[in-house]
Amino acid sequence: MKALLIVAHGSRRHASNQEVLTLAQSISTRNDHDFDVVEAAFLEIADKLIPDGIEQCAKAGATEIIVMPYFLNSGKHVTQDIPEVITAIKSQYPDIRIHVTEHLGASSVMADLVLQTATT
Amino acid sequence: MKALLIVAHGSRRHASNQEVLTLAQSISTRNDHDFDVVEAAFLEIADKLIPDGIEQCAKAGATEIIVMPYFLNSGKHVTQDIPEVITAIKSQYPDIRIHVTEHLGASSVMADLVLQTATT
Repeated sequence: MKALLIVAHGSRRHASNQEVLTLAQSISTRNDHDFDVVEAAFLEIADKLIPDGIEQCAKAGATEIIVMPYFLNSGKHVTQDIPEVITAIKSQYPDIRIHVTEHLGASSVMADLVLQTATT
Repeated sequence: MKALLIVAHGSRRHASNQEVLTLAQSISTRNDHDFDVVEAAFLEIADKLIPDGIEQCAKAGATEIIVMPYFLNSGKHVTQDIPEVITAIKSQYPDIRIHVTEHLGASSVMADLVLQTATT
């Protein structure tokens, strides 16, 4: 059973965090992917942190969790902070494979998305 | 003559800012769009701020500048700070149409991009 955990930075602004939770919710209702669970969590500031998101996926029965950093740039949060949190948490879930993907901004189609957003 | 100015937050980390400048550069070399100039600038922290980016586009001969906020969430930077900077700068360039688009995170294909990034 496969879970996707979208990890964003987290904001003091509730609506910003809600946008990410809504994005996860909208993906979870689609049937064009093989994730049984799609959740979002935050690196800091917000109420729902990465350990909460991992726990949620685990409770839903996930045997594999794909963690996707929802960040545009490969700053310290992406290169150090998220991997550190994940490494620390892995020992608590020895039966679950937890893997961190590239951050969103590394996508090869980011230039296309910029052009599309700029011209619509 | 049409310019695209990608506006990111700006980071203390030089490499993060460079990623955005490189993205703009890579778009500028493509020939599948109608922007004659593609530049990037930053809301704060970085050396090259929005007024610098606008000036650069103006010096290149732009008669229209499309400003695209390179942000994932519609926080205060997107809803207030960038529009305020642009409003303040417009009077300096009465002959140039300057327009701010939706921020990147508002893209209707963001969910697709998340899935694509999570599965590659």
